[in-house]
Amino acid sequence: MFMPKEMKFFDLFDKQMLNLLEGAELFNKMLCGGDFTRDNVDKMHAIEHRGDEMTHIILNTLNESFITPFDREDIMMLANKMDDIIDGLYAIANRFYIYKIEKASEESKKLADITRNSVLALQKAISLMRSNKNMREVLKHCIEINRLENMADEIRDEAISRILNDPNANPITVIKQKELLEMAEAITDTCEHLANILESILVKNN
Amino acid sequence: MFMPKEMKFFDLFDKQMLNLLEGAELFNKMLCGGDFTRDNVDKMHAIEHRGDEMTHIILNTLNESFITPFDREDIMMLANKMDDIIDGLYAIANRFYIYKIEKASEESKKLADITRNSVLALQKAISLMRSNKNMREVLKHCIEINRLENMADEIRDEAISRILNDPNANPITVIKQKELLEMAEAITDTCEHLANILESILVKNN
Amino acid sequence: MFMPKEMKFFDLFDKQMLNLLEGAELFNKMLCGGDFTRDNVDKMHAIEHRGDEMTHIILNTLNESFITPFDREDIMMLANKMDDIIDGLYAIANRFYIYKIEKASEESKKLADITRNSVLALQKAISLMRSNKNMREVLKHCIEINRLENMADEIRDEAISRILNDPNANPITVIKQKELLEMAEAITDTCEHLANILESILVKNN
Repeated sequence: MFMPKEMKFFDLFDKQMLNLLEGAELFNKMLCGGDFTRDNVDKMHAIEHRGDEMTHIILNTLNESFITPFDREDIMMLANKMDDIIDGLYAIANRFYIYKIEKASEESKKLADITRNSVLALQKAISLMRSNKNMREVLKHCIEINRLENMADEIRDEAISRILNDPNANPITVIKQKELLEMAEAITDTCEHLANILESILVKNN
Repeated sequence: MFMPKEMKFFDLFDKQMLNLLEGAELFNKMLCGGDFTRDNVDKMHAIEHRGDEMTHIILNTLNESFITPFDREDIMMLANKMDDIIDGLYAIANRFYIYKIEKASEESKKLADITRNSVLALQKAISLMRSNKNMREVLKHCIEINRLENMADEIRDEAISRILNDPNANPITVIKQKELLEMAEAITDTCEHLANILESILVKNN
Repeated sequence: MFMPKEMKFFDLFDKQMLNLLEGAELFNKMLCGGDFTRDNVDKMHAIEHRGDEMTHIILNTLNESFITPFDREDIMMLANKMDDIIDGLYAIANRFYIYKIEKASEESKKLADITRNSVLALQKAISLMRSNKNMREVLKHCIEINRLENMADEIRDEAISRILNDPNANPITVIKQKELLEMAEAITDTCEHLANILESILVKNN
């Protein structure tokens, strides 16, 4: 269905998504193990740096290509949203480190798990975009990403409600925890935006 | 002036704007009455859900249309900004609920009133876009929306100044109130962005 | 290389960048001198207002032009990002004022200095865009803007780490300082986005 020249975008997207997945898995591992070490933050920084390079390559390839598998704007948005996800993962990992958090809250762990599952579903959906025949399966992953985002919303709301209505809470701890919960939830929001872009590409190319 | 096929976009925008107006009125009613009940938050959630569906319908209609009343990008931006307004209304209504606020501050009430007036002006402006003859009236509403946004800025600034410079303030209460004021003001910002898009459409199609 | 009709965009960009530079220099002066007076905030507001007017002129010129020096979308993004920078400068100057800050922290001063240098590099880069022959010099400025943004990141992180891990910190002071640091750093982020747009224009027009 696609011409060889167009296929290179899928190769680049796949590579970037595997990089994102590595980041989401590292984030999950950091939170489960409470491993907020300089070493892990540096690893995440390296992943973020690789992500930046991939974003540049995708956008430069786009600028130099006459033929693209879907609208130029959609390719640009996909590349930028992928970059936002990896930036978000690095930003939150770094914040856990600079806030000297020793143990992640149960809700943060749940959000890290949801983030990983959401990135995994995106990675599968994007690799399936190579063929129009996979439309139904891509949509199934998009629905799953929407479901995960709703779950993340609820977990964040419950945690924030609990933390901010605790009369004995330490205000500085509240500031830190509230921010970390919101940063984690925001990553699942970006995953949902990406899924929405995929859906709209499917509608246009159907 | 517009062809029948193009008119459907105006029908969809009108429908979405009436949905937004319902949200802005519910928000206003919640704040005036202090009715931060689960029931009201659920009503707002239903409005937000309807908004999501309308956004999908508008964007899918756009993807399937060869003829559009103005630039495709402007239609996409209008639809997305409308969606942002309704998302903002649900987010703030939900925050009032999860923060267990029992009585809205006077400034929050003023911001809710400004938001309602701003959405009302937008609703009128957008319904007037059907004909080029209404240009002057559309601009009048846009100017009013700008004025309301400036008012909202000042109210938020004064309230934040008062709250954050009160030596006896409870820090957790400060965090909650500051966020609610900023969330309310941000909705009027989005209304202004929408008004700016309308103005630029008028310039292009004049 | 460019036709006379296209040159007007460069004239407008130059004018806007000089306005931004005036804002960045005022911000720097305010922080170094601790001059968070109503008078200085009003001066910044006037700069922001002039910026708004320039943004309108650029976008209207774009809507009325058939010939543009680079992609319409890039011109729109450049204009909007310039506007974001000036909005950010006014917003932070105003926050220093309403928070009744008497003396800026050392880190805030460093961030104001970085912001000024970043805007200066942008101003030079943009004025060099008039000729394709300056490509290498434009890129040099873009690299410098990236370096400055990384520096700003580190300064903000160190300051936030210090402030939020101080057991004797006053929570309200923490809220204020954290926000001011993040607002300052966000301006250097926007400068970087602008530099990225310049780089992508160079790639496309090479």
